[in-house]
Amino acid sequence: MSLDPALRQRILSDFPADFLSEEPSELTEYGRDWTRVLAPAPSAIAFPRNVDEVSRLLVLCNESRVSVVPSGGRTGLAAGAVAANGEVVLSLSRMRKMDEVDRLGATVRVEAGAITEAVHEHCAPHGLTWPVDFASKGSSTVGGNIATNAGGVKVIRYGLTRQWVLGLEVVLASGERLEIGGALEKNNTGLDLRQLFIGSEGTLGIVTAATLKLTRLPGATQVMLFGVPDVASVLRLFREARTGPFTLAAYEFFSQKCLDRVLSHRKLRAPLGQACEYYVLVEVEGEGHAESDGARLFERIEPWVSHVFESGFAVDGTLAQHGSQARELWALREGISESLSATGLPHKNDVALPIAGLDPFCAELDDVFEQRYPGWEICLFGHVGDGNLHINVMKPETMDRAAFFTSTKEADRDLFALVQRHQGSISAEHGIGLLKKPFLSYSRSPAEIAVMRSVKHALDPNGILNPGKILDL
Amino acid sequence: MSLDPALRQRILSDFPADFLSEEPSELTEYGRDWTRVLAPAPSAIAFPRNVDEVSRLLVLCNESRVSVVPSGGRTGLAAGAVAANGEVVLSLSRMRKMDEVDRLGATVRVEAGAITEAVHEHCAPHGLTWPVDFASKGSSTVGGNIATNAGGVKVIRYGLTRQWVLGLEVVLASGERLEIGGALEKNNTGLDLRQLFIGSEGTLGIVTAATLKLTRLPGATQVMLFGVPDVASVLRLFREARTGPFTLAAYEFFSQKCLDRVLSHRKLRAPLGQACEYYVLVEVEGEGHAESDGARLFERIEPWVSHVFESGFAVDGTLAQHGSQARELWALREGISESLSATGLPHKNDVALPIAGLDPFCAELDDVFEQRYPGWEICLFGHVGDGNLHINVMKPETMDRAAFFTSTKEADRDLFALVQRHQGSISAEHGIGLLKKPFLSYSRSPAEIAVMRSVKHALDPNGILNPGKILDL
Repeated sequence: MSLDPALRQRILSDFPADFLSEEPSELTEYGRDWTRVLAPAPSAIAFPRNVDEVSRLLVLCNESRVSVVPSGGRTGLAAGAVAANGEVVLSLSRMRKMDEVDRLGATVRVEAGAITEAVHEHCAPHGLTWPVDFASKGSSTVGGNIATNAGGVKVIRYGLTRQWVLGLEVVLASGERLEIGGALEKNNTGLDLRQLFIGSEGTLGIVTAATLKLTRLPGATQVMLFGVPDVASVLRLFREARTGPFTLAAYEFFSQKCLDRVLSHRKLRAPLGQACEYYVLVEVEGEGHAESDGARLFERIEPWVSHVFESGFAVDGTLAQHGSQARELWALREGISESLSATGLPHKNDVALPIAGLDPFCAELDDVFEQRYPGWEICLFGHVGDGNLHINVMKPETMDRAAFFTSTKEADRDLFALVQRHQGSISAEHGIGLLKKPFLSYSRSPAEIAVMRSVKHALDPNGILNPGKILDL
Repeated sequence: MSLDPALRQRILSDFPADFLSEEPSELTEYGRDWTRVLAPAPSAIAFPRNVDEVSRLLVLCNESRVSVVPSGGRTGLAAGAVAANGEVVLSLSRMRKMDEVDRLGATVRVEAGAITEAVHEHCAPHGLTWPVDFASKGSSTVGGNIATNAGGVKVIRYGLTRQWVLGLEVVLASGERLEIGGALEKNNTGLDLRQLFIGSEGTLGIVTAATLKLTRLPGATQVMLFGVPDVASVLRLFREARTGPFTLAAYEFFSQKCLDRVLSHRKLRAPLGQACEYYVLVEVEGEGHAESDGARLFERIEPWVSHVFESGFAVDGTLAQHGSQARELWALREGISESLSATGLPHKNDVALPIAGLDPFCAELDDVFEQRYPGWEICLFGHVGDGNLHINVMKPETMDRAAFFTSTKEADRDLFALVQRHQGSISAEHGIGLLKKPFLSYSRSPAEIAVMRSVKHALDPNGILNPGKILDL
């Protein structure tokens, strides 16, 4: 689909020559995210250099009723940044400026196109970090993190992205510019519009800059891996870890089936002496940064680990003796996604449950799949300390690819019905985008959806911002 | 003003006999909060026992276009819960049920009328707490805490109320009931309506229940008091405290003028050997709960304290040797508000600044008052680690009460203009309510206020919920 000719003319006359691209390769690249379900088909890509250009572009698009898809690192897994219907993609890739770190206030203002990892590197020399951290941090942007309220591996310690944003600069569909909050921890002056935009997946406004809240870099850490026989044991051990003599920084789990694929794909040796049904990776934090603090944390952990084995909370386990061993243990967890894709065809879901409900949920999940989808392999892993399960269903080798994807649609409904019965969420951290939109009602009631729709109408009456994402108007 | 007769008839026939009160003493009590600026004048008080009664009442009020003021502990300082215009007050005082604590998930669901301190007592036996904590916790309610996004003395450690709410049950003006979130840490399924209601001061819906996120009770703590010569020194010491060998749990400050009034009112002795311009109360936390952990924390702090004195970050100070001494130090800080009122007539403000801006702000504040309001005593205290200053201006003894209050209106505008120039907030934690409404534009732009208004229209088209609070329609 090509760009509205009158709008193109206006843009060409009002903006610098390199503002707009209609190059087929760029249309493809900027029209898609990490999902590969829908074919990208934007009409043009705009590359503003500042908030004023963003605002002027939106005025024109709003007048012409041309849809706009905001674009960050496009690492999303719900097709929230996909442009498949002739939309103008608004890329923030030229807006990556990072201001000086305010060391005293522990804040930094950055433009929305700044890469997540670049922010980490920018803050680290000051002993500070923005604790939003996950595998795609090398490509994802702050704007995308905010638009999707990104999660990751440290949520149990630090919470989600929405906890780490103090101020936002947002451009509305009308082109109007909002400066919300600033560098303030406390600001109870009416509705918190900042929180409304965080997690709205680009449907309410374009985030162009943010003042981020920073925290101290963690001190001494230790990493442990435990083997346990069942999900109930994963949760029993979680309770022990939560009350242990340390700060819990991560509590991740994965099944033997996941581990098998990681070991086979990466040609690694098994981390424990025996195979176990489930594995738990625990990272803990102590006080202080000195080498002696690390040794002291180690000393504190040892009696706790003995207690874990003596009480039968784990059947096997290992405590990393140094940093490279800690990284090896983490690699087992972080290599799962890649290894599943390399060794088969996974169908991914990302759900959350109340933690106490994880055990019965997993049992029922096994039952449902055994009865309705016999022979399908389920690979479970996730941030179990947050109740967050990544459920990957692998295509049986003998099954046709198309037939598998047709069946997964049905299986998704079975899965989401189960999630709903257990008061869970059908999308813990990936968002709704286009891919989960048909299933929104499994997690949100008609009354909630009606309120969301009325807020969308109030902020974007012509429906030009990321249309079709989350819900249809 | 008396209740609409048709509505009264409907309520009397549809609800239990004790549902509605029109007793003059109850009208006075439930029509006001801790402010005493406006005369309470509600038409009736409704005492629902459950969410169904709340919903049915709102349907009737919405049909009759009768305004409703939600009422918690009424400890607010911005007249957010005042009913001065014949409104129906909806008291949540019969809805105080607390469910069993979910120890594994560290959550608890409570009804909105539950008293904040009762929640603490309910959770403590499980080693858990809801870390929303301030002086009025013995009367304030969870619903009120949520409606105002309450702050307090531990925000630097734990953040504001909005960080500690997982799920909400809310009744809209239409009577429609929303169940948002539940007991989930992660739930990225569209707009986060929960955050929209938190801090909305009862203008968007009535919170009837909440699922609260809990955390471990703190381990060993230590309390210190330092004396410093100026605000710049308060901030220099803050930087040292932020990077000290402990977790910072509180960083409070107050001026000698505040201390003088506390010592005189409570008949106490000065805590340090010399008078200082400013005092800083620091509470720090270590790992673990055992007695040995307390001793260990003490050992860690001692070299840090020596460093503070050797480097000249403080001119005097004391480290509490035991729990009762720690409580005595805290009493100096917590007794300020009461002592100011007991020893004079304070006019209160509650502002926030970016931390790095506190020093120039305080200097300019002194200048403005010296020039325009000579002889007025300013008592400064607050949660300086959050950039939050409580600015209390004392009525000069020779000045007439009415003249003072007239002048404070003008002084407020001078103060808020200064706050605005320093990118601050005119209400850090007290909210806007009725009292700060005329000044909202000092912290929020016309564009922001327009968005707030459009959201209010979308959720409460007849404007029956807490009308006149935050903004006029």
